[in-house]
Amino acid sequence: MRYTKLFGKTLKADKEFDTKGVEYLIRGGFIDQVMAGAYTFLPLGVRVLHKIEQIVREEMDKIGVELLMPSIVPTEYWKRTNRFDSVDVLFKVVGANEGSLKKNDAEYVLNPTHEDVITPTAKKFNFSYKDLPFAVYQIQTKFRNEERPKTGLLRTREFRMKDLYSFHKSVEDLKAFYEVAREAYIQVYNRLGLGDQTYYTAASGGDFTEEYSHEFQTRLETGEDLIFRVKSNNQCFNKEIAPSKAVALEQDSEMKPMEEVLGKGIIGVDELSKFMGIKPSQTTKTLIFESEKGILVASVRGDYDVNELKLKKVAGVKELKLASDETVEKVTGAKVGYAGIVNLPNDVEVFIDDSIEPLINFETGGNRTDYHLANVNWGRDLQKPKKFHDLKVAKSGDLYPETSEEYEAFKASEVGNIFPLMTKFTDAVDYQFVDADGKSKPVYMGSYGIGTSRLLGVIAEKFHDDKGMIWPESVAPYKVHLIALGENAQEEGLKIYETLTKAGVEVMWDDRGGASAGEKFNDADLIGLPYRIVVSQKSLEKGGYEVKKRTGEEIKYLNLNSLIELTSR
Amino acid sequence: MRYTKLFGKTLKADKEFDTKGVEYLIRGGFIDQVMAGAYTFLPLGVRVLHKIEQIVREEMDKIGVELLMPSIVPTEYWKRTNRFDSVDVLFKVVGANEGSLKKNDAEYVLNPTHEDVITPTAKKFNFSYKDLPFAVYQIQTKFRNEERPKTGLLRTREFRMKDLYSFHKSVEDLKAFYEVAREAYIQVYNRLGLGDQTYYTAASGGDFTEEYSHEFQTRLETGEDLIFRVKSNNQCFNKEIAPSKAVALEQDSEMKPMEEVLGKGIIGVDELSKFMGIKPSQTTKTLIFESEKGILVASVRGDYDVNELKLKKVAGVKELKLASDETVEKVTGAKVGYAGIVNLPNDVEVFIDDSIEPLINFETGGNRTDYHLANVNWGRDLQKPKKFHDLKVAKSGDLYPETSEEYEAFKASEVGNIFPLMTKFTDAVDYQFVDADGKSKPVYMGSYGIGTSRLLGVIAEKFHDDKGMIWPESVAPYKVHLIALGENAQEEGLKIYETLTKAGVEVMWDDRGGASAGEKFNDADLIGLPYRIVVSQKSLEKGGYEVKKRTGEEIKYLNLNSLIELTSR
Repeated sequence: MRYTKLFGKTLKADKEFDTKGVEYLIRGGFIDQVMAGAYTFLPLGVRVLHKIEQIVREEMDKIGVELLMPSIVPTEYWKRTNRFDSVDVLFKVVGANEGSLKKNDAEYVLNPTHEDVITPTAKKFNFSYKDLPFAVYQIQTKFRNEERPKTGLLRTREFRMKDLYSFHKSVEDLKAFYEVAREAYIQVYNRLGLGDQTYYTAASGGDFTEEYSHEFQTRLETGEDLIFRVKSNNQCFNKEIAPSKAVALEQDSEMKPMEEVLGKGIIGVDELSKFMGIKPSQTTKTLIFESEKGILVASVRGDYDVNELKLKKVAGVKELKLASDETVEKVTGAKVGYAGIVNLPNDVEVFIDDSIEPLINFETGGNRTDYHLANVNWGRDLQKPKKFHDLKVAKSGDLYPETSEEYEAFKASEVGNIFPLMTKFTDAVDYQFVDADGKSKPVYMGSYGIGTSRLLGVIAEKFHDDKGMIWPESVAPYKVHLIALGENAQEEGLKIYETLTKAGVEVMWDDRGGASAGEKFNDADLIGLPYRIVVSQKSLEKGGYEVKKRTGEEIKYLNLNSLIELTSR
Repeated sequence: MRYTKLFGKTLKADKEFDTKGVEYLIRGGFIDQVMAGAYTFLPLGVRVLHKIEQIVREEMDKIGVELLMPSIVPTEYWKRTNRFDSVDVLFKVVGANEGSLKKNDAEYVLNPTHEDVITPTAKKFNFSYKDLPFAVYQIQTKFRNEERPKTGLLRTREFRMKDLYSFHKSVEDLKAFYEVAREAYIQVYNRLGLGDQTYYTAASGGDFTEEYSHEFQTRLETGEDLIFRVKSNNQCFNKEIAPSKAVALEQDSEMKPMEEVLGKGIIGVDELSKFMGIKPSQTTKTLIFESEKGILVASVRGDYDVNELKLKKVAGVKELKLASDETVEKVTGAKVGYAGIVNLPNDVEVFIDDSIEPLINFETGGNRTDYHLANVNWGRDLQKPKKFHDLKVAKSGDLYPETSEEYEAFKASEVGNIFPLMTKFTDAVDYQFVDADGKSKPVYMGSYGIGTSRLLGVIAEKFHDDKGMIWPESVAPYKVHLIALGENAQEEGLKIYETLTKAGVEVMWDDRGGASAGEKFNDADLIGLPYRIVVSQKSLEKGGYEVKKRTGEEIKYLNLNSLIELTSR
């Protein structure tokens, strides 16, 4: 490819970008923003995207078969699974103007994912035990009505995704395939150069399942997730579900007398701890929730937050929301902000985080407007519960409860997820299979996603230096960046371009007449192809062509044959 | 691929289909209807689609560079070009439910084509004469709010399309590229096996341009277009614009006296000609139009219709619509249905089709409610106009005016189109280029589309017999359909499957245990892969493997080496 035919152009650094990765993708001419959350993949970008998708396709072909479902389907598909109203990133499609509505005024959903569509299709074709298990996938454009798109390709309203769905006769078979899919994903990340930085991570099931799911998380400073890794066994947890034990902090050796402290309008841990002259970790935070089983009270150490997913599991409830102000007042006898764990009514269930257990002389709300209790102690001021729980949102420095070792906590970006959906979607369309014994039995389902355009964004965040991109060879848009300097070298440039291209090497030739050597070198660094080849009077005098890898500083001079050999590997 | 892993299944002929092509695509397990106008490409279908798209990509790469624009863009893009309200197949995208609208209530267009999006993008990057000309393309899912989707993949609400856009410094350069694109298209059709049945056809510019555009039309009995071909020079015209001369019909040798005939409520050519006892071709049809230049009257021979595109050109007007009943009454003095060309007011412009010129003793409306004039004659009853025009919708049997030869008229289906857009879209976003002389000048633009999923549909309509599909080798989902008959042959089947697959031959092995030989043979014909290979006790006795091409009846017995040689060509 000649640079002058490339359509996109490198851009100057004339504004602030979210991250370096976004900056280089835009300034390098890989993507162009069309609106918040939607980008054009310019010619360089589309080549990277295709390479990523081809790698994904090759690995998925080993475990499933490709198809392609429509992006728009009647709203009926999403209503049938009770997701039309509940999924808040859904887009709807309607006629755009009067003429269009007159032609056809039906309403459609623009799919962000295809569980709701593949299941009825699978039901049409695969109903006997002989047909199971099977797995199908597609690589397709998806749509999500994101509130705040950000970080370039990482969170967008339109994106590319590989989604695979598997169907099984039993939970065991689903679980076995789950591991097969996991291995296929690992192959993908290995081939993209992300393997050693990508972690198989337990996460919540989101909209999809009450079971936990798994994510693949790539370590990244600018990542949006916090991962807790157990160093001794490499187990990883997303912050949203990471089990955690607080580090025990030094406590007073003797109990002080409990006091009721008037702190008019003092609400919130920071303000309160300052006011009382104690550390936040010596306070407690008590929240009142409503659930389908009634009122629940949860309390964590003041420097933690309540993890509602954990609380739901511990309490065995499905619906959970913060109680209304009225309910809080009814339960605690005080306005919101003064709830505590001493003297609560007997008929509410109280869950206390294990971080509070070792505290001596701690604070809790007074259950009386404007009042707090200081120097509260277990056994004396309130009875120890039968059991303390893990109800807290994990934070850096926390311990893994099973081994009490400190987690390694790091920022990361999700590059894939797998969900054991069980029978949630197959039940919704009454999809069962006829077993060998003639009986109808439930079909178990799994769902496995990789955002391919998101992967492009993560690769950009991961592989760059302060000059520009450093593409892994497996996805680089071209392998060679060719620069011919000076009038005399143009003919040589053309010769190398044609020879390497003919040898099957993907070459981009910066054939701009008006650009200086400096501009060309800077753009080569910005675009970040694996090999830079320069032909000039100087290089020819030194015996041929100057070759430099984007990853290093070493410069070699090679003749044409050696050049072909090096770059066509 | 093993048939049992294919997900899709062949289906029995248990209902009526629009066409044989649609029937075989659905019954063969290539596509599955999700809603009116949207299909899932099942694994067999997605392979054909990918092959078609790869052929298109390879040919487009020779004349342009690939990118990928978003499917959704803010409505602003379409308002800027004044197309948001006028294009009646536009879909709009909005938040689907309360939660979604709360997150983001912006409205977007779901693009049916991308002129409105590529032009501002091109403007960002390419503003100097050095950047021009250039051409970019994408292969992408598009959306059109079709009123009545039909014929499977031929008219859908969601479809796949290759769209290429070119930008030029001058009309001449645009026209030169137009020919380059035409040649690239011809290569595509040749490689798909459609070359000798596909015609470069002049058509109207539709929404895009007032110039004529060109379509590629594949001859097809079930096609939706009627094409008029000049046999002597292979020039083709879509019915919507075909110039035409009526065949002269025998006329009376003498004029009869003109009469005013009372035909109460007799309206329309068929009823009228029966009532008057004359042929429809001896009547005339006169219509009153309103235009930006005032009232226009057009008259054609009774067996023709008025072609509004032709009338617009002849009259030199841009807006044209049938006059309201009130206007008709004002102009003719009669209710609608009795307009004629005798005694019209002097201030209306009258255009008369050349099919009326040779008529003797013809009928025309009486311009008086319930009255018709019989035996009207030029010169005696009304003055001959200075010029007769071609205003008629062409029909089978018509002559090409330039040479007076009879057209070959045939049904066809559009498989591609190219539009000289000139500066319509570049002007809309004020996209000009700076020429070598430092002056800003208009950028000329062309647009070039191929519907790749539609092509799949056309190929299915074109290549089948009464048993099923007959895929051209270039796009067949697999090359070989392998059947192993009898328990003993299964091992041999596996051997051939693995050997051929290893040799790079795409094999589909019908490995179903429960299906009979008859079912397997029928499905092989229905699916229509180029080679059917059968291994059985009988074939092994005859020296190896039975090979039959889908296109013929001849059966050969080959050993494994010959089989590899034959199928890996």
